[in-house]
Amino acid sequence: MGKDRLAAFSDGVIAIIITIMVLEVHVPHGADWAALTSVAPNLLTYVLSFVYIAIYWNNHHHLLHTVARVDGLILWANSHLLFWLSVLPVATAWMGQHLLTPLPTAVYGVALLMPAIAYYLLVRAIIHRHGEHSVLAKAVGADFKGKISIILCFAGSALAFASPWLSMGLYVLVAVMWLVPDLRIEKIIGRE
Amino acid sequence: MGKDRLAAFSDGVIAIIITIMVLEVHVPHGADWAALTSVAPNLLTYVLSFVYIAIYWNNHHHLLHTVARVDGLILWANSHLLFWLSVLPVATAWMGQHLLTPLPTAVYGVALLMPAIAYYLLVRAIIHRHGEHSVLAKAVGADFKGKISIILCFAGSALAFASPWLSMGLYVLVAVMWLVPDLRIEKIIGRE
Amino acid sequence: MGKDRLAAFSDGVIAIIITIMVLEVHVPHGADWAALTSVAPNLLTYVLSFVYIAIYWNNHHHLLHTVARVDGLILWANSHLLFWLSVLPVATAWMGQHLLTPLPTAVYGVALLMPAIAYYLLVRAIIHRHGEHSVLAKAVGADFKGKISIILCFAGSALAFASPWLSMGLYVLVAVMWLVPDLRIEKIIGRE
Amino acid sequence: MGKDRLAAFSDGVIAIIITIMVLEVHVPHGADWAALTSVAPNLLTYVLSFVYIAIYWNNHHHLLHTVARVDGLILWANSHLLFWLSVLPVATAWMGQHLLTPLPTAVYGVALLMPAIAYYLLVRAIIHRHGEHSVLAKAVGADFKGKISIILCFAGSALAFASPWLSMGLYVLVAVMWLVPDLRIEKIIGRE
Repeated sequence: MGKDRLAAFSDGVIAIIITIMVLEVHVPHGADWAALTSVAPNLLTYVLSFVYIAIYWNNHHHLLHTVARVDGLILWANSHLLFWLSVLPVATAWMGQHLLTPLPTAVYGVALLMPAIAYYLLVRAIIHRHGEHSVLAKAVGADFKGKISIILCFAGSALAFASPWLSMGLYVLVAVMWLVPDLRIEKIIGRE
Repeated sequence: MGKDRLAAFSDGVIAIIITIMVLEVHVPHGADWAALTSVAPNLLTYVLSFVYIAIYWNNHHHLLHTVARVDGLILWANSHLLFWLSVLPVATAWMGQHLLTPLPTAVYGVALLMPAIAYYLLVRAIIHRHGEHSVLAKAVGADFKGKISIILCFAGSALAFASPWLSMGLYVLVAVMWLVPDLRIEKIIGRE
Repeated sequence: MGKDRLAAFSDGVIAIIITIMVLEVHVPHGADWAALTSVAPNLLTYVLSFVYIAIYWNNHHHLLHTVARVDGLILWANSHLLFWLSVLPVATAWMGQHLLTPLPTAVYGVALLMPAIAYYLLVRAIIHRHGEHSVLAKAVGADFKGKISIILCFAGSALAFASPWLSMGLYVLVAVMWLVPDLRIEKIIGRE
Repeated sequence: MGKDRLAAFSDGVIAIIITIMVLEVHVPHGADWAALTSVAPNLLTYVLSFVYIAIYWNNHHHLLHTVARVDGLILWANSHLLFWLSVLPVATAWMGQHLLTPLPTAVYGVALLMPAIAYYLLVRAIIHRHGEHSVLAKAVGADFKGKISIILCFAGSALAFASPWLSMGLYVLVAVMWLVPDLRIEKIIGRE
């Protein structure tokens, strides 16, 4: 099985996820400033989730670039990632309607945590197929940022019952950390 | 007509189906645990349907890989399959709102049965075009799993009025059966 | 400008249109037979619109196959077609909620008529670019079926105020007429 | 990173945006003329936004055609553009429900202004990567139309509190200005 159709299908699903999320930013009821500002929390949460999905798309692109062949394990690890990404719009909408309340903030953290874990498992599945000494294995290395992201999202989710503001700060921190472009794979491939 | 655009269009439709299904997992009303757990049935049904669609995407990919040329019959058999897959989100949402009640469980079974029949018809249309002695015909062979799936989905749908739990068990069984990767076509092509 | 990206974009839009239409087949309210049968009109209208969109996708594919180069006129004629196709889901939903009432039936006819006109204009734009003596011009010829479709959809729309049943019969007739695969272009190209 | 996947992903997102916008053209409540005419404002706003998105798709296509390589800056400038385009459906729906009232008209103008700015930034990011003396830099030149669009959308947004009709006239003017095909890049590339 070629990786091109897997990449195209993943791109399609991610493009749809990033776009339908905006459907949950409901149209304001009324035509005045109060109506407009009432959707501000939805819009802010949408921005954050948009950035996360864009980061995943970017990293996923780099990841698949290193893949030589796709097997059943990689395929299902990829579908598993897409599943958790597809749940993010619902968590985003809930968070947007109840910004900075404990449970929605915690659930939003779980919705960020699960794709991070799924991405980690996809990396493992690809390394498993290509060998521990492959380009990818060297490129990803200790995957420091991936592991930090999992820890921060988990911490954010757990802390939501103590301080939703702190949780939100951690979620934003992870996004900022990734906006610095992930150049690891490009570097190593460039050297080959 | 080339198969590439048919594959791309099918991938697009399947990617959209698998993603818009999540729109039916409604955002919880309220910010507490009761609100959250109220959407659990929707989420569970969504997981099952997601797996089914992913299986169809995977199998469809393998199937088209064997196709040399597309004619009108194959095209419409493919559109017929896409139609039934597109109905699954509605059946999933109904099932999610009325988990384990007889009629929605039976209708969900029909919504799983119809794509299985449509897939079988697509296989027949492709074999009809390429000949009974083609690679595909040999690869699919007796299509044991395909026929078993049709029987199990039909049984699940019929038994829903007696025991919705049993129906659900059968639907899950079919999904598990396919999660074991379908390696038949790969094997035969590998040998050529 | 290459035709490949135009084809890919059009395929994407058509794939989304054909799929989001199902979102208007609302989930039944309640879990009994009465609830289920109440969505039957929506489902029936959805089937008809699905077939129409699938026909357009198929014909559009054949049409673009003959195109050598894309200019601004073709591009906007194509966007014009996509616009009218994108309106079909709304007309379908209205029709589904008020099956066989005069105005929705007439508007549905208009929603079928406009893409037919837009398709005709796209054909003209392509012939204009490639010359009256091109393969396409010969292949499409008098475009009997295209013109008949425009007349029948117009007639169906106008007759809706007299007999919605007759209108619906005409709409179905056009769909059936196109399900017979459009082999004109393939034949002429095959002969070249 | 190749530009092909960036183009494909952007096309996917734009195709979805242009299509889901129609979901906000709600199905009329009732089956009479009053119900039908009540959705006319939504439909009119939809037409305008559809034309804007189609223009962006067209220009974006030409723009990427000139790109040789994609870096992180271009990638995020592109995601930034897609973000603002994805907000347009919400602004369109609000405008459609409150046609020619000050605040929604102003916000709609902002929703047209932001992608125009984002597009300008994307052009700058691409020029930054390829050099001020590249084909693209020469092709885009002073980017007169791009800057005029930004000014007109800004003016339209600001004037909405004085005269929503004037604002709407400016928004339509910008669309008309771009419907004249953007042939600048084609010309210069043709000459190389």
